[in-house]
Amino acid sequence: MNERNIRLLIAYDGTDFAGWQIQKNRRTVQALIEAALETMHRERRALTASGRTDAGVHAAGQTANFHTDIANMEGRRFVPALNSLLPKDVRVLDAAETSLDFHARFDARSRTYRYHIIAGRAALPHERRYALQLWRRPDINRLNEYARRLRGEMDCSVFASPKDPSKSRTRYIYGASFFVEGDTLVFEISANAFLWRMVRSVAGTLLHYEQKGLSAASFGDILNSGDRSLAGPTVPPEGLFLWKVEYYRGCV
Amino acid sequence: MNERNIRLLIAYDGTDFAGWQIQKNRRTVQALIEAALETMHRERRALTASGRTDAGVHAAGQTANFHTDIANMEGRRFVPALNSLLPKDVRVLDAAETSLDFHARFDARSRTYRYHIIAGRAALPHERRYALQLWRRPDINRLNEYARRLRGEMDCSVFASPKDPSKSRTRYIYGASFFVEGDTLVFEISANAFLWRMVRSVAGTLLHYEQKGLSAASFGDILNSGDRSLAGPTVPPEGLFLWKVEYYRGCV
Repeated sequence: MNERNIRLLIAYDGTDFAGWQIQKNRRTVQALIEAALETMHRERRALTASGRTDAGVHAAGQTANFHTDIANMEGRRFVPALNSLLPKDVRVLDAAETSLDFHARFDARSRTYRYHIIAGRAALPHERRYALQLWRRPDINRLNEYARRLRGEMDCSVFASPKDPSKSRTRYIYGASFFVEGDTLVFEISANAFLWRMVRSVAGTLLHYEQKGLSAASFGDILNSGDRSLAGPTVPPEGLFLWKVEYYRGCV
Repeated sequence: MNERNIRLLIAYDGTDFAGWQIQKNRRTVQALIEAALETMHRERRALTASGRTDAGVHAAGQTANFHTDIANMEGRRFVPALNSLLPKDVRVLDAAETSLDFHARFDARSRTYRYHIIAGRAALPHERRYALQLWRRPDINRLNEYARRLRGEMDCSVFASPKDPSKSRTRYIYGASFFVEGDTLVFEISANAFLWRMVRSVAGTLLHYEQKGLSAASFGDILNSGDRSLAGPTVPPEGLFLWKVEYYRGCV
C-alpha cells in the first residue's frame, strides 16, 4: 500500500453541530468528514484535527489530516470530492499532500481564535448565531490594556475550567487584542494551545472587569493570582470562531 | 375608540421566509407580526410595510405601521411585547407612536438596499446564507464607474422583470456604489422606489459587464437603451438586504 498523508483546511458553521469530536448519536463535524472519507475509501479513515471545538463553536480555519491509499489523485482534488459528500454547513477550503509524519495536532505551533461581539446595538437576526449581544458599549482602550497583559508564558489557572483535564496549565500566549471590524467588536487571541473553554473564559473575564472599571495593574494581579473564582462568566459559544492554525513546517 | 398609529423598525433573516407579504400556507414576516398583533389586540390588525421583500431577502431596516386602540402603553413598549411573541429570525428593533396619517409605504422618501458579495475567496459556512459567492475578484473601480451612472431620474426598463406590474418604469435613484466592508464587497443603492427584483438585476448587470470589461460609456448606452435583453443575470436573493427606509417626516 502506497500511503499518503493529506492535510485539510476546514470551515464550519457550528450552530447545528455538537462540536468537532465524534460522539454517539450526535451530529459532529469529525463524524461527517470521516463518513465522507469512508465513502471514498470504502473503509474507515481516521481524521486528526488541530484540536476539538465545542458545541456551537464555529471554524474559519480548522486543520486536520488523514492517511489515504487513493493513488492518482492530486491532493487538492480532495476539496471537491469531499465537499460533494458534505452538507453546506461544513466546507473543505483546501487540501494538499504533506509529509507522511505530519500530525495536525502535535505539529501545530499556534491556534488563533476570534470572538465576535455586537456592542451597543441590537444584533440583527442574521447575526444572531455568530456573535455575543452586549447592550453596553465597552471601552476598547481599557480592554486592550488588559489584553496586552496576556502575552508570553503564563499560568492560565484563572481561566481553567474545573473540568479541564490538562496536567499543566501553563500556555504560551502569542498575543491578544480587541479591534473593530465593520460594526462588530472582535477579540483575537493566539497561543500555542488553550485549556478547555479558555478563550470563552478569557473574553468573559476581560468584559467583566472592563465593566467594573478595574485598572490594568489590578487586572494583572488577578491573572497572577491563579484563582479561578476571580474569573468572569464564560461567554456563550456562538460568538467563537477557530480562526487559524499555524504549523512549524509551513501552513496548511 | 382612541386610535393611535405605531411605526416599527424591523429586521429579519429571510432564509426561512417566503418573503414579507402574507401568502396562504407560507411562512412570511407579515403573517408572523400580524399574528403577534392579533394576540395583543384580540383581533386582526393590518400591518403596512414600506414595501415587500422577496423570498430569501433579508432586512436590517424594514419599516411598517399599524393602528392600535391599546391605551396606556408607550410606543416603545411594543418592542419587547412583539419580540416576546416572535421567533428569533424576526426582531422589532424600534417602535414609536407617530401621526395618525403616517403610512409606511406612501410616505417613504427612499429605500436603500445592500447586496453582499464574497469575491475571490470561498464563502465560509456561516456566511453562506447572506452573500453571493463570486470566485473572481472584480475591479471595484470599474464597478463604481458604472454605478455613478445610476443617478437621478431614470427609465429603469433595462432592469424591469417582464412580470413587473408597474405602470411607469421611471424611478429616482439617489446613488449607488460599491465598497469593501471587512472582507465583503458591498453594493449599496438608494432610490425613491424600485421595480420588482430591480436591485438584483442591477447588481447582476453591473457584475456581468465588469467581467466583460465594458467601458463606462458603453454601459451608459445600455442603460439608455431600455432593452431588457441587455441586462445581466439576476443575482440570487440571499445576498440582498433591505437596509434602510427614509421618510419625508423624520425617520423611523
